[in-house]
Amino acid sequence: MALPAELAAKLKRGPDGLFAAIAQERDTGIVLMMAWMDDEALERTLATRKGTYYSRSRQEYWVKGETSGHTQYVHDIRIDCDGDTLLLTVDQVGAACHTGNHSCFDTEPLEFTDSVIDSTDPDTGGH
Amino acid sequence: MALPAELAAKLKRGPDGLFAAIAQERDTGIVLMMAWMDDEALERTLATRKGTYYSRSRQEYWVKGETSGHTQYVHDIRIDCDGDTLLLTVDQVGAACHTGNHSCFDTEPLEFTDSVIDSTDPDTGGH
Repeated sequence: MALPAELAAKLKRGPDGLFAAIAQERDTGIVLMMAWMDDEALERTLATRKGTYYSRSRQEYWVKGETSGHTQYVHDIRIDCDGDTLLLTVDQVGAACHTGNHSCFDTEPLEFTDSVIDSTDPDTGGH
Repeated sequence: MALPAELAAKLKRGPDGLFAAIAQERDTGIVLMMAWMDDEALERTLATRKGTYYSRSRQEYWVKGETSGHTQYVHDIRIDCDGDTLLLTVDQVGAACHTGNHSCFDTEPLEFTDSVIDSTDPDTGGH
């Protein structure tokens, strides 16, 4: 099993052979997580519809939810214009984050260091 | 100017010193693009609220919209649980993609290689 040649040619891999995969929840639009894939992880995802990634730290493949039960059913995958990122539209069972949070981005906002005050926010003028 | 020490310590950079930054449109929830940042690009984004990235191919900083006019006003930035990805909530002026598409992911879906037919899709049963 290999990726279709056209797709393999489109993918732009980093120095470690990996590309980014973003999982977005289908019903809510929430961005759940970003993880890494190599060609094999993508092949497995396309063959099983289970979000399958490559761990940079553990250097192994992992199927989302295989140990936690928090599986990801993959509905749709798009490759971006320059081929270094995939966007997966998924149905997520339970929490996507290993911390128990729904999304891996359920964290405190970073603090801006600009001196812009809220009243100069372009949004607050017109609506 | 430097990143706050706590934030700098949290960031997990790739072998090239970069981390991923996902831009999601605030009003629509659409995932617009993924690009790369290093510490300096993040510092600039936090100081200006203009999405500022690092180009791996051109090895230079770029401010989204600086040449196209398709600027990104950054409302909110979250770092993910393991510190290798940021999620930016933005107001995007015009197309986010250099191709003229609204999103860099406005591309054809990849083809799954599973043998699952639509009627076995878990979604089509209950609702």
